[in-house]
Amino acid sequence: MHKKPKILVTNDDGIMAPGLKHLWEALVDVADLYIVAPATEKSGVGLAITIRDPIQVQPVEWEKGTKAWKVTGTPADCVRMGMSVILDSPPDLIVSGINRGSNSGRNVLYSGTIGGVIEGALRNVPGIAFSCVDFMNPDYKKTLHLIAPLVKHMIDHPLPKGTLLNVNFPDTEEILGLKMARQGRGFWIEDPDARVHPEGHSYYWLGGKWHEHEEDEESDVHLLRQGFAAAVPIHISELTDLAHFHERKERFNNHFSRERT
Amino acid sequence: MHKKPKILVTNDDGIMAPGLKHLWEALVDVADLYIVAPATEKSGVGLAITIRDPIQVQPVEWEKGTKAWKVTGTPADCVRMGMSVILDSPPDLIVSGINRGSNSGRNVLYSGTIGGVIEGALRNVPGIAFSCVDFMNPDYKKTLHLIAPLVKHMIDHPLPKGTLLNVNFPDTEEILGLKMARQGRGFWIEDPDARVHPEGHSYYWLGGKWHEHEEDEESDVHLLRQGFAAAVPIHISELTDLAHFHERKERFNNHFSRERT
Repeated sequence: MHKKPKILVTNDDGIMAPGLKHLWEALVDVADLYIVAPATEKSGVGLAITIRDPIQVQPVEWEKGTKAWKVTGTPADCVRMGMSVILDSPPDLIVSGINRGSNSGRNVLYSGTIGGVIEGALRNVPGIAFSCVDFMNPDYKKTLHLIAPLVKHMIDHPLPKGTLLNVNFPDTEEILGLKMARQGRGFWIEDPDARVHPEGHSYYWLGGKWHEHEEDEESDVHLLRQGFAAAVPIHISELTDLAHFHERKERFNNHFSRERT
Repeated sequence: MHKKPKILVTNDDGIMAPGLKHLWEALVDVADLYIVAPATEKSGVGLAITIRDPIQVQPVEWEKGTKAWKVTGTPADCVRMGMSVILDSPPDLIVSGINRGSNSGRNVLYSGTIGGVIEGALRNVPGIAFSCVDFMNPDYKKTLHLIAPLVKHMIDHPLPKGTLLNVNFPDTEEILGLKMARQGRGFWIEDPDARVHPEGHSYYWLGGKWHEHEEDEESDVHLLRQGFAAAVPIHISELTDLAHFHERKERFNNHFSRERT
C-alpha cells in the first residue's frame, strides 16, 4: 500500500466554481486534497501576485473531510500562502482547475489556472493545470475519468524540475483519448468593445477573439480540434533565448562594456 | 536621415512614476514616443489582463508634445489598448519601465514591467524592459546614458521574433558597462507578515525576500552584483519542454490514447 499523495488544489475561477468541485471529485478518493483557492474569480491574471493589498485567508466548509481555504488573492498567492502559512509540509503535487475555457496554445502566460502551477514549478513542486476548451457549456463530467489516471501517471513518471503539464479537454462530444502535445501558436487576443457609461464617459470591455496561427499537427490546438485531450509539458524555469545569447553576446558586450582595468 | 522610430512606452509603476518620466527623458530626442501607462501602480501583475472589469483610456498632458494616455488596467492591457484603439499603426518597439526594483533572475514572469513587453513579443513587436535593482533609492539618472544607445542598437540588430530584452541596472555607485546575460535563478519569494485588522480579523502582507540560488557567472544576477547592467534575451513564444516531449510522448500516448479505427 502506497501512501496517498498530498495534493494542493487551486484554480482561477474561484472557490465557488463548478470546475474546482469536479476536480476535487475526480481526486478525492486517491489523494489527500488541500483546497486553497481564490475567494473570487481571477481569470486572466497569469502569475500575478498581490503586493500592495492585504491578503485574507479563511477556512471554508467542504465535503468528505477535505480541508479548504479561500484567499483574497490570485492563484499564485494561493500557492504562496498555501506553502508558507497553511500547509505544514510541501505538497507532492499542485493541480489547478478545471478551468472554464481554453488555456491552450500561447494562452499559458495569461492563465491564472496555469499561474498557480507555475508558482509551484518555480519551487520544484510539480503541477498539472486542467482546462475545458468549452467556455459556454463546459461538460466537466466527461473529463473526470482521465484525471486520476493522469495524476497517478505523473507521480510515477515525474516531470523534470521547472516543468509543468498544461492539460486541455476538447469541446467535442466525446474525448478520443489523451495525447502529449506541443504548445500551439494561437491565443486569445483583445476585441475591444467601446461603451458609454450612464454618466457619459466612455469605457471598454477588453473582449477576446482567437488569434489564429498555423498549427503543428502535434500542437495542443490541433489535437483539441481533432477531439483529443492534450497535455503540453511547459518549461518556465529557464527563459533565456540561448541561441541568441551565444550568437550575439560577444559583439554586444564589445559594443557596450567598458570594463575597469 | 533615418526616420525616428515609433516607440510605445509603458510601465507597471503607473503613469505618475518617476521611472517612466526618466525613460521618456532618455528617448524623447531620438524617437517618436507614445506613452500608454497604467493609471495606478500595477507591480507584480505579470502578464495579467483585465477581463471582468471595464477599462478606461484617458489622455494625459505631457511635455514636449509627447502624447500620453493613462489606462485603468495592467501593462499588458496598456499594450493591447495601445495597439488596438490608441495608435493608428503598430510601434517599431515597446519600452517599459524604468521599474523601481529588480526584475532580474526568475522574476520575469511576475513583473508587470516585463508583462507589457511580453504582450508585444507575442505580436512580433520587439521590446525592452528596464528596471533598477535599487528599490529604496533608485538613481535613474545614472542609467540614462545607456538607454538611447541600447534602443538604437536593438533597432539596428533586431531580436528574433518572440524574444524580448530584459535589462536591469545595478545598485552599485557606478555602472561598469552593459553586458548581455543569461537569466539568473533567484527570484522574490513571499515573506508573509501576519497582522490584525482594527476590527479584529487577521490578514497578511505577502512580503518578499530574495530566494537565493547558485548563479552562473554569465547570469544577470551575478553581473548586477559585479556592477554591470545586464540585458537578458528572454524567449516566451515557445514554452514546450521539447526534450521531455520527445523523450516521453510515445510512451505517454500509448498509455493514454485510444484512437478510433
